[in-house]
Amino acid sequence: MENKKVNFSEWYNEIIDVSGLSDKRYPVKGMNVWMPYGLKAMQFIDNLTRKYVDSMDFQEVSFPVLITRGQLMVEFEHVKGFENELFWITKGGSEKLEEDMAMRPTSEAAMYPMFSLWVRSHADLPLKIYQIVNVYRYETKHTRSFIRIREIHFFEAHTAHATYDDAEKQMEEYLVIWKKLTEMLCLPYMINQRPDWDKFPGAKYTLAFDTVMPSGRALQIGTIHQYGTNFSKNYNITYALDDGSHEFVSQTTFGMSERLLAAIISIHGDDTGLIFPPDIAPIQIIIVPIPSKKVDVNAYSTEIMDRIRKLDFRVKMDDRDAYTPGFKYNDWEMRGVPLRIEVGAREVEKSQVTVSVRTEKEKKTMKMDEFLENIGKIMSSIKDTLAERAAETMKNMTVTAEKLDDIRGMERIARLFWCGREECSRKIEEQTEMACLGINQDSNKKGKCIVCGKDGSTGIFARTY
Amino acid sequence: MENKKVNFSEWYNEIIDVSGLSDKRYPVKGMNVWMPYGLKAMQFIDNLTRKYVDSMDFQEVSFPVLITRGQLMVEFEHVKGFENELFWITKGGSEKLEEDMAMRPTSEAAMYPMFSLWVRSHADLPLKIYQIVNVYRYETKHTRSFIRIREIHFFEAHTAHATYDDAEKQMEEYLVIWKKLTEMLCLPYMINQRPDWDKFPGAKYTLAFDTVMPSGRALQIGTIHQYGTNFSKNYNITYALDDGSHEFVSQTTFGMSERLLAAIISIHGDDTGLIFPPDIAPIQIIIVPIPSKKVDVNAYSTEIMDRIRKLDFRVKMDDRDAYTPGFKYNDWEMRGVPLRIEVGAREVEKSQVTVSVRTEKEKKTMKMDEFLENIGKIMSSIKDTLAERAAETMKNMTVTAEKLDDIRGMERIARLFWCGREECSRKIEEQTEMACLGINQDSNKKGKCIVCGKDGSTGIFARTY
Repeated sequence: MENKKVNFSEWYNEIIDVSGLSDKRYPVKGMNVWMPYGLKAMQFIDNLTRKYVDSMDFQEVSFPVLITRGQLMVEFEHVKGFENELFWITKGGSEKLEEDMAMRPTSEAAMYPMFSLWVRSHADLPLKIYQIVNVYRYETKHTRSFIRIREIHFFEAHTAHATYDDAEKQMEEYLVIWKKLTEMLCLPYMINQRPDWDKFPGAKYTLAFDTVMPSGRALQIGTIHQYGTNFSKNYNITYALDDGSHEFVSQTTFGMSERLLAAIISIHGDDTGLIFPPDIAPIQIIIVPIPSKKVDVNAYSTEIMDRIRKLDFRVKMDDRDAYTPGFKYNDWEMRGVPLRIEVGAREVEKSQVTVSVRTEKEKKTMKMDEFLENIGKIMSSIKDTLAERAAETMKNMTVTAEKLDDIRGMERIARLFWCGREECSRKIEEQTEMACLGINQDSNKKGKCIVCGKDGSTGIFARTY
Repeated sequence: MENKKVNFSEWYNEIIDVSGLSDKRYPVKGMNVWMPYGLKAMQFIDNLTRKYVDSMDFQEVSFPVLITRGQLMVEFEHVKGFENELFWITKGGSEKLEEDMAMRPTSEAAMYPMFSLWVRSHADLPLKIYQIVNVYRYETKHTRSFIRIREIHFFEAHTAHATYDDAEKQMEEYLVIWKKLTEMLCLPYMINQRPDWDKFPGAKYTLAFDTVMPSGRALQIGTIHQYGTNFSKNYNITYALDDGSHEFVSQTTFGMSERLLAAIISIHGDDTGLIFPPDIAPIQIIIVPIPSKKVDVNAYSTEIMDRIRKLDFRVKMDDRDAYTPGFKYNDWEMRGVPLRIEVGAREVEKSQVTVSVRTEKEKKTMKMDEFLENIGKIMSSIKDTLAERAAETMKNMTVTAEKLDDIRGMERIARLFWCGREECSRKIEEQTEMACLGINQDSNKKGKCIVCGKDGSTGIFARTY
């Protein structure tokens, strides 16, 4: 396997291939096949997402993938943002369509004409829905699995509220959901308010969740947007007040994608392969029986498997005849299974298991009952280790710059004081080849702009995917 | 509400609308919005499907939605079947694409180029995969929610086997999966082998699962196809034999769609509204507290809800202030919740619940503990009732015809002896306005063809959706 630190990009492509997450040999550029193992991991991420948003009274829907040109044209600013990135359907059968339709790049233009039918009065608010669907971008840049593709596995939440304040509270709720989700995925992140010239088209402001890849480049893995009444005014989404007048709703959205999986692969993996956080591991525990002529290791392994399954962990026994235990150890380590149990004659005789944790080097032998009682704890400690390592890496990848020379040519996340003006941002970008990720929301520090010397806050600059 | 027997078509449209399953006001013809309640029901159907196919060692994948013209052209016979029903993407951004791409109408042409990469030797067989995705048909006929639409929620399983015999065994396995699934959905069906001129393009033979709608018209709700080597020869899917030569794989597929939901709505519903089979009911039990000044009915209701939830049933308490208990009864009956619990002062005082079963007229009052112990049984009896009623209706809707006059102008399922020749089928179709569904596989009876008098088997003819 490639060395992750030295050749991150090659390591990334190789691990996706050999671990069976995705097959990119499909004949359409940037459209890959989700293989069973990768799809399972993504579905577990989706289900965690569903759990957290459902608990906040969101409801899942599914909108059509096609959006008419007319629907898109309503929001001109919005179309401008996406118009060169759309796949256009112009023919049905052998007939030219009366009106072209685009495959959704995101669903504002699909959903909001319906919002204007659904919202009538206060009683219909807040409206909180989400969908987990694929979205489509006619991406012309170099594509990369799970990071830059043309068919994107996407989560999008859309809300409508009576007041701007209510919409602001929704933005805070998103932060709670995001924190819960990323804790389960053991992913560190910064919250950056994107500069006005890089916010979502139509948004009042955009908060982005950025993480750091092993290459030192930033990856945006989620965004939340405050729309205010920008969209409701265009799509005429109003509710009636008691006096008979109508008020435009305030809206927000929250978007995430399969980039979450890209971050998990990249940040947690090592030179041996993937490491899945336990909550989304397609297989959480793999049992490898070591053949013995003395005792029936398979029967004992099956007993353990059944007992683990009763505890609701996802367990599998690898009883393939054609492979040695050593091969199997490597195989499942490469696939990122968090916990391995080895069962040989000694384990059977002493009612023990030998436990190997993917994030540790030492194996431990313990009584089977003791192991069963402690699976939850072991899984928690794996999560802690992954989270600590990831936070440490992110810290190491971050440089605080006092002058532009400190960061010139670097592939690191640069923290520096910046006045917020585009002019100064352009100068920083030109001299460092880094992009402006905006004002960091995790820091209150104030200081003088690294370019112009005026009052500034912590700006984040980095190369990005 | 419309009368189901008299105005089935209007009843069907109304119930979908008022119960919140789907919104068809979306601006693209034949593309509807899955509303939360409808999507949940469909997801429960999907999850039952996953459970049964997973237990048969199928693996879930997700293929891209776009298929190049080149991929489609490989299977000429296949393209011929679909070419006038495809949505074509001809533009990316403002550029004309070098090669047109179609949105998948089904995924043979998407999957089989990959199969030819994946299958190398005996060790790769059988290959058993499935996906649950939307497929697209440029439907020019009149559209109808869940029945005839342009964006179809679809299940498709695809397999590859070393021999034709293995593929035939797969066809039998599909029958087992189908039987399990339809038992949970309480749906009756016939198995009919479609005539050669109406089989899936490229199939050696097609077995269809047909059910009967209240209108007396047949609805195809699933199909399984034996492809033999028809596709593997075109897409070059081979495995190596020991002597170095290559053999083409034999293939099968199994397809189902949201028509399952259409059948559930239509067959089980009544003039009061939907009736969901318990296993796919988004809400299985609704608790309606009847306000009382003497005792705290809400606290008691909450206790019941918590205890039901622990038993893993999907339960909800309707504590909306603005509505009367009577309104709530009607509302949840309309939405098809199988079981309702009413809790008033008397119930609280005596530790009782009053239970109303959606398929029965009488209410029953029983001790809370007795109810909790018996929920499973009550749900089973609901399933039995639904299955019996549906089977009875299907029987009543079936006519055995000895001469064409018996069925002329009828909207019924006609069973009659037929020699299997297209010529005779055409005559039957012309005189009865019914379509040929093929040879019924549930019957071994032989008799003389109703048209030509030659030896025949039981043919099924009906108007269809």
